[in-house]
Amino acid sequence: MEYLDRVVIAGVGLIGGSLALALKASGSVEEIVGLGRDPDRLRSAVSAGVIDRAETGPAAVVPGADLLVVGVPLGAVRAVLESIAPHLRAGTVVTDVGSAKGSVVDDLRATSIDPAGFVPAHPIAGTEKSGFEAAFPELFRGRRTILTPMPESRPEAVDVVRGVWEACGAQVIEMSVTHHDRMLAATSHLPHLLAYGLVDTLGRWDPTEEVFQYAAGGFRDFTRIASSDPVMWRDICLANRTALLETLERYREDLADLTALVRDGDGRSLETVFRRAKTTRDQYRPVFEK
Amino acid sequence: MEYLDRVVIAGVGLIGGSLALALKASGSVEEIVGLGRDPDRLRSAVSAGVIDRAETGPAAVVPGADLLVVGVPLGAVRAVLESIAPHLRAGTVVTDVGSAKGSVVDDLRATSIDPAGFVPAHPIAGTEKSGFEAAFPELFRGRRTILTPMPESRPEAVDVVRGVWEACGAQVIEMSVTHHDRMLAATSHLPHLLAYGLVDTLGRWDPTEEVFQYAAGGFRDFTRIASSDPVMWRDICLANRTALLETLERYREDLADLTALVRDGDGRSLETVFRRAKTTRDQYRPVFEK
Repeated sequence: MEYLDRVVIAGVGLIGGSLALALKASGSVEEIVGLGRDPDRLRSAVSAGVIDRAETGPAAVVPGADLLVVGVPLGAVRAVLESIAPHLRAGTVVTDVGSAKGSVVDDLRATSIDPAGFVPAHPIAGTEKSGFEAAFPELFRGRRTILTPMPESRPEAVDVVRGVWEACGAQVIEMSVTHHDRMLAATSHLPHLLAYGLVDTLGRWDPTEEVFQYAAGGFRDFTRIASSDPVMWRDICLANRTALLETLERYREDLADLTALVRDGDGRSLETVFRRAKTTRDQYRPVFEK
Repeated sequence: MEYLDRVVIAGVGLIGGSLALALKASGSVEEIVGLGRDPDRLRSAVSAGVIDRAETGPAAVVPGADLLVVGVPLGAVRAVLESIAPHLRAGTVVTDVGSAKGSVVDDLRATSIDPAGFVPAHPIAGTEKSGFEAAFPELFRGRRTILTPMPESRPEAVDVVRGVWEACGAQVIEMSVTHHDRMLAATSHLPHLLAYGLVDTLGRWDPTEEVFQYAAGGFRDFTRIASSDPVMWRDICLANRTALLETLERYREDLADLTALVRDGDGRSLETVFRRAKTTRDQYRPVFEK
């Protein structure tokens, strides 16, 4: 990547914080500024060495930024874009890290920011933890980052964002907004909804929560993502509502079929489904475990 | 546990094999005999040091057994019990390791075996792998083993089985068959069905399976159990059909409600569900991660 004098990260959480740490480690950025609403949290992030400097308002730092990264939950993206819009100079590249891209593009178009300098991005990485305290510079290493450039995005702006993520060790690919949102609804947003749902179903079913005492490794791994940030995932489910509903309806239909197989005692068909799923899962193990 | 001269394990897979290794390591058993249908597999288990001796028929080893452990998939339990019944002497304690207990009790009652010497058991441990090659002696250490004694089970027989599992490092608890089957349907059988279902839904939706290329750690962990043995899980779903259907129907109703929240854009209610689930999941993290 080309050397950047100032990167401003609006929203220093797990992703924004890890990006700050990875960029700092790459030696390609002079100054990383965290922009946020809570001065105490930002000061802690400076003390922790996650960012170089903290600001609660855009006026002081946005005009001098080479790159501005929006790292807030999807429901807050539009407000952040609106707040920085008056302070952006023409050359600043703007990007985001949201898990849904259609809503971000809609948010961008609702502001006065020139789409030519905007490159939507989604690093497919994270843990069930949140906050800059959970950030670490290797989070993106070997993971994919998907760019979904707008038709107006300048190639030079795309190159900057690509360079940033490659400097963090990510493998960068490009695809359309629609394709991104369908793929991620299926492999990320749906599983999170299902895991939250299962833990909540069991917790409400058994008020003493004795049931969880008998859970083993399978349940632990299946429900790990139910520890994820509720606000972030509320926003993702709403932002990617159309694609999520599409995959959710398909899953619910298949689950109704599976239920019928259990009810009918159709072991042959159950085994066929389980075997097919195992074959697929085993086949993709190298992709998942890399 | 009291010293046992001979333990016969019918079905030397992940669980039976790990039990053999753990008992051997405990130094409390003179001879561990693997009983099975496939002489090649059994010979390999002997060569691998998992069992001391292999037999394909019960006549030679069952009469001299202090303890007989049925370690086959639930669908094969009845046939195994029937095959050993004519060879059992009065003092031999019989147990199993099945993930559902009601069906095992039904199977036992369908044979001529005296329930006084039978103690149903379920070690809540396992991995998504199967076969004795995946066995290891620490599999049960710190995990729970649930005993569901029959009304007729002799206290001395219960003590033998309890001692065996404690020697393997397990924490042994007792409960009713019905309670066991409802608890495990919720925390184990349902998640397996959901995980198999999701992988199969996505695999059939996207024949090129490109979708799996964009899966990250959340999907990997959520679907790990979809690599489990299809025959074993077919049998569990059928054996515990009543309890599984009960929890499955409850989950499907809640999922319909969650779908409505997404469709209606009800972020406040979505956040409530997600937050409640996260609180529960975080609260039980120490139990799961121990």
